[in-house]
Amino acid sequence: MAPASSTSGSAAPLSEDRILACLAGYFPQTHPSLLLGRGDDCAVLKAGRPLCVSSDLFLEDIHFRQSYFTPEDMGYKALAANVSDLAGCGARPLGFTLCLGLPAWADMDWLNRFFSGMAEVAGLHRMALAGGDLSRSEKLHVSITVWGEPADPGHFLVRGGSMPGDVLFVVGSLGLARVGLNRLEAQGRQALNEWPAACAAHLRPVPQVDAGLMLARAGYNARPPALMDLSDGIMRDLPRLLGLTGELSVTCPEKCTGLGAEIVLPQGRLHPELLRYAAETGKNPVHEALLGGEDYALLGSCAPDMLPPLHAAIPGLFSIGVVTAGGGIECNNAPLDSLGGGFDHFDAGQDA
Amino acid sequence: MAPASSTSGSAAPLSEDRILACLAGYFPQTHPSLLLGRGDDCAVLKAGRPLCVSSDLFLEDIHFRQSYFTPEDMGYKALAANVSDLAGCGARPLGFTLCLGLPAWADMDWLNRFFSGMAEVAGLHRMALAGGDLSRSEKLHVSITVWGEPADPGHFLVRGGSMPGDVLFVVGSLGLARVGLNRLEAQGRQALNEWPAACAAHLRPVPQVDAGLMLARAGYNARPPALMDLSDGIMRDLPRLLGLTGELSVTCPEKCTGLGAEIVLPQGRLHPELLRYAAETGKNPVHEALLGGEDYALLGSCAPDMLPPLHAAIPGLFSIGVVTAGGGIECNNAPLDSLGGGFDHFDAGQDA
Repeated sequence: MAPASSTSGSAAPLSEDRILACLAGYFPQTHPSLLLGRGDDCAVLKAGRPLCVSSDLFLEDIHFRQSYFTPEDMGYKALAANVSDLAGCGARPLGFTLCLGLPAWADMDWLNRFFSGMAEVAGLHRMALAGGDLSRSEKLHVSITVWGEPADPGHFLVRGGSMPGDVLFVVGSLGLARVGLNRLEAQGRQALNEWPAACAAHLRPVPQVDAGLMLARAGYNARPPALMDLSDGIMRDLPRLLGLTGELSVTCPEKCTGLGAEIVLPQGRLHPELLRYAAETGKNPVHEALLGGEDYALLGSCAPDMLPPLHAAIPGLFSIGVVTAGGGIECNNAPLDSLGGGFDHFDAGQDA
Repeated sequence: MAPASSTSGSAAPLSEDRILACLAGYFPQTHPSLLLGRGDDCAVLKAGRPLCVSSDLFLEDIHFRQSYFTPEDMGYKALAANVSDLAGCGARPLGFTLCLGLPAWADMDWLNRFFSGMAEVAGLHRMALAGGDLSRSEKLHVSITVWGEPADPGHFLVRGGSMPGDVLFVVGSLGLARVGLNRLEAQGRQALNEWPAACAAHLRPVPQVDAGLMLARAGYNARPPALMDLSDGIMRDLPRLLGLTGELSVTCPEKCTGLGAEIVLPQGRLHPELLRYAAETGKNPVHEALLGGEDYALLGSCAPDMLPPLHAAIPGLFSIGVVTAGGGIECNNAPLDSLGGGFDHFDAGQDA
């Protein structure tokens, strides 16, 4: 739905005031979680309980392309990818700030479409846009900080804490966004006809907020699940979940667990479009699922007796194996590291 | 002081793990305000009291130039400019997230220098780096979200609320950073020899955190001062302080106050380098002070009887006039709008 301000012609020049008025049509000024909304030096959050906070970049030609993202897609995905970090902590989204660098080609019509896509995500999760910054930039630049509250103040879910014998699980699709990226890069938006689910997974990922909240509640009276946002592929993110790599392993190597994992991932678990893509390109569909990237699924582990009720309560949750006491990470009885290392922005040798 | 990780050679290739290890040498992992530090999907803030939150962009060739900013200057200013928004609310800084887009030329040596400049500001204000995002980008890109707590939970300072007869005041230098920008653009770092204070004001602004906290305390038992971060020049920011322009005036025009102001700004109040610059370039020094930009000073108003104790308590505070019931904004008996409109990123006709 376009607000009244969208009736101002797209040819009108941008100004900060016009941009702010446009934005006001999509994002309400007030929110129950705010003592002070946007428009001052800071927003002021009530914050009577702990807050989960996360920030992400969304940069043109690094994270997305103009050629096959509509303005609505860009606004949608920029916020959805951030919300997925809140889901990975089992937190309920509350608000966000938006930093927007706009190239000369961005006009009011483009902004209305961009904000409407972003407002779709904000509205779905009832999030306040609490502030931010506007600037010129050469390429389109978006950076967002989101915050939310744990469903119960003491119960947010973190990486680490897995134990041998725990069940590994995923909520969401594996490798589907990777197929979408590959097809969109090759065919542009033509790809949507032939690969609708894969393209949607790349353009409009659905953060698993409800599943994250249910997983957090499962930890109220038991050892809580380990949980993380699966955004860089299982190859790279599973070692992080197990505490083998990632920031803590770098800064506190003594905390490394030495855990391993045995993944069982039959092809029947994979999306038909991923299987078709693998067949057409001669790739191994399970490897593609493990390499993934931008799945915006959840990856976690829990005690085995916790799995059946989670299975029943959370659509899209499926187990992918078990945590072991060591011995590396294997998938379908082959070592995982034979596949290469997942995605690192700073590794020049990999395909993005 | 360079941490141990800086001994890794500058020629070594970047990787996310190396960058995170480098960063760990400058920014502690734990902080009293955090339940969970960086390294997971989200940081978790204790947040038993309200939080002030603000986000800013700091983009190469828009907000700074490689040619005359050292890596330390860039790290310093990116965070200091954000902290100034907390000062403008009278809040005590607690933490921040850092989103960093790194071009191919950035190596570990550059990162060590950048982080050390940023750690100077974080250390001074005891702020936790609680998370963020890393990416490749074409130009250097920094976006930061800061948060802090009001000195007393109920007492943060906002724009608006000025009354006719209130005294207008500034804490900090007016127009000095504008001179620095002009000279650095013209002469590069050579300008530091001839214009040391002006260049420092542009490269290494000092956020007025202590003054902001004292102003907030002044409002505990009296009508609180109106306050804002002065970053776009008095020309543009004073109408925002008075509620004549800015986001609220756009979204809620019925809240516009119709207030005016009479500014008295004698040349004796201006920094000698600004006066010398004006004399050498034939410009009006008072106009330059009012146009300003990136002063990172505080601009506020308070009841007249509050001024003497504030004067005594806050070095660098000086009054610049009075709030009137209407009649526009005048400076030294001339209308302010004859000077043009201050800085708008989206106004192509102005000089940046």
